[in-house]
Amino acid sequence: MSAVMMDGRAVAKVWKEKIAKQTESLISKGITPHLAVVLVGENPASQVYVRNKENACIKAGIRSTVIRLDEGCTQQALEDVVRSLNRDASVHGILVQLPLPEHLNESRVLALIDPDKDVDGFHAMNSGRLMNGQPRFVPCTPLGVMKLLEAYDIPVAGKHAVIIGRSNIVGKPMAMLLLAKDATVTICHSKTQNLPDIARQADILVAAVGRPGFVTADMVKPGATVIDVGINRVDGQIVGDVAPEVAQTAGYLTPVPGGVGQMTIAMLLANTLDAAE
Amino acid sequence: MSAVMMDGRAVAKVWKEKIAKQTESLISKGITPHLAVVLVGENPASQVYVRNKENACIKAGIRSTVIRLDEGCTQQALEDVVRSLNRDASVHGILVQLPLPEHLNESRVLALIDPDKDVDGFHAMNSGRLMNGQPRFVPCTPLGVMKLLEAYDIPVAGKHAVIIGRSNIVGKPMAMLLLAKDATVTICHSKTQNLPDIARQADILVAAVGRPGFVTADMVKPGATVIDVGINRVDGQIVGDVAPEVAQTAGYLTPVPGGVGQMTIAMLLANTLDAAE
Repeated sequence: MSAVMMDGRAVAKVWKEKIAKQTESLISKGITPHLAVVLVGENPASQVYVRNKENACIKAGIRSTVIRLDEGCTQQALEDVVRSLNRDASVHGILVQLPLPEHLNESRVLALIDPDKDVDGFHAMNSGRLMNGQPRFVPCTPLGVMKLLEAYDIPVAGKHAVIIGRSNIVGKPMAMLLLAKDATVTICHSKTQNLPDIARQADILVAAVGRPGFVTADMVKPGATVIDVGINRVDGQIVGDVAPEVAQTAGYLTPVPGGVGQMTIAMLLANTLDAAE
Repeated sequence: MSAVMMDGRAVAKVWKEKIAKQTESLISKGITPHLAVVLVGENPASQVYVRNKENACIKAGIRSTVIRLDEGCTQQALEDVVRSLNRDASVHGILVQLPLPEHLNESRVLALIDPDKDVDGFHAMNSGRLMNGQPRFVPCTPLGVMKLLEAYDIPVAGKHAVIIGRSNIVGKPMAMLLLAKDATVTICHSKTQNLPDIARQADILVAAVGRPGFVTADMVKPGATVIDVGINRVDGQIVGDVAPEVAQTAGYLTPVPGGVGQMTIAMLLANTLDAAE
């Protein structure tokens, strides 16, 4: 038996169409949803991400402004840009593209974004709202995973979800979202002992490691749902964290590309629309 | 083999003595740490907790003010009290004793407390700081559990910690603290299937359920560390969530009373001192 490939592109398309419709209706009321993206430096992957976000905004009718700052930009200059976007009433969503160049203090910049414009959901105030069960803006990747699970009617309540990776951006918010939907949640990471034994218990296995082919078939319970959050570049190709062989063991699997990544952008649009509303 | 009983009273005593010394030194510099506790209504358990907190403050040299409001107090009146404590520069820590009477909106009150005076660590801003790995005020009970584990040199990194209970006050912050110390963390709750199987994998098992005798010996791996956060009243006696028989299976066990509860109060003093500093 081969896994059902979860078509993130198709599910995201439905979301994007819905968002475009709502955006149109909001514009007819005189409000144009507006996302401001701050991009520092020349990181090639970041350039691609920002371009994709821009294009998705344009397609949905959401106004998008990209503020490009030099690689050598000072902390002060970056913070001034964020402050001015906070004050700008025409801007509903602010996103600072990560990673920042090493000389810049990422967490200080994120803390400066107005929590009510924080469409990436990385501000401590939004993390805490999620953790305390009163979410406002939720990080786009784990939110997209939840919507993908919903779209395929994958049961979550009472199921055992194992998350490999504990980042602020994916692993920890993913855990909180699955927990809120009544999953039993295990968070694993680089220090975890007996990872295969634990992963093999998962009804839902989320890989957010950043290592190509990290999740092998022996780590997957037959029939499990495997969510591949990895985006790794290997010889110019994009591959996930899950080895191709897992398609023979899993019940459901997200492809890379065409899986979670597509949902991330759709959720960014959804958060921006939400901020404008 | 019988478990080592983890003496929360003794460990808390050492903490309290250290805090009393630091408080003395702070007072000599002209700053008297000051905790304000807001108590609404006549809940007998709350009365006892507040009295215990008051006494602990006095013993440590920390100034304590208890503001008592009638059971029928309005949301507005309660919020006004919190606002005035936020403004009062002589007050370093603010604690609203939970649970509040049913007609009051708990989360709105907690959101109103100045995060820099939030010594209970329940404000979303402090939850988010903890979740994002930059903790400021951490909830006292899970913080106390970490200090107890440290005091007994219980290894955490790479170990599997299973937490039963997912409250904002214990379960979720406990998960974040154990994760930050490199444990593999599983969060279980009322919807968890096969709880005994999962609990039995735990090197560190934390019970925060609120049901007397809920954790039985068949749920405990021989030699595991079992942390009993439960405080249940049965026939006028205080008992935990862990059945007495578990003492024959566990390697380490916290008694109730005399375990975690003692640490909770010590951590409240520590947070108040920290706020004053």
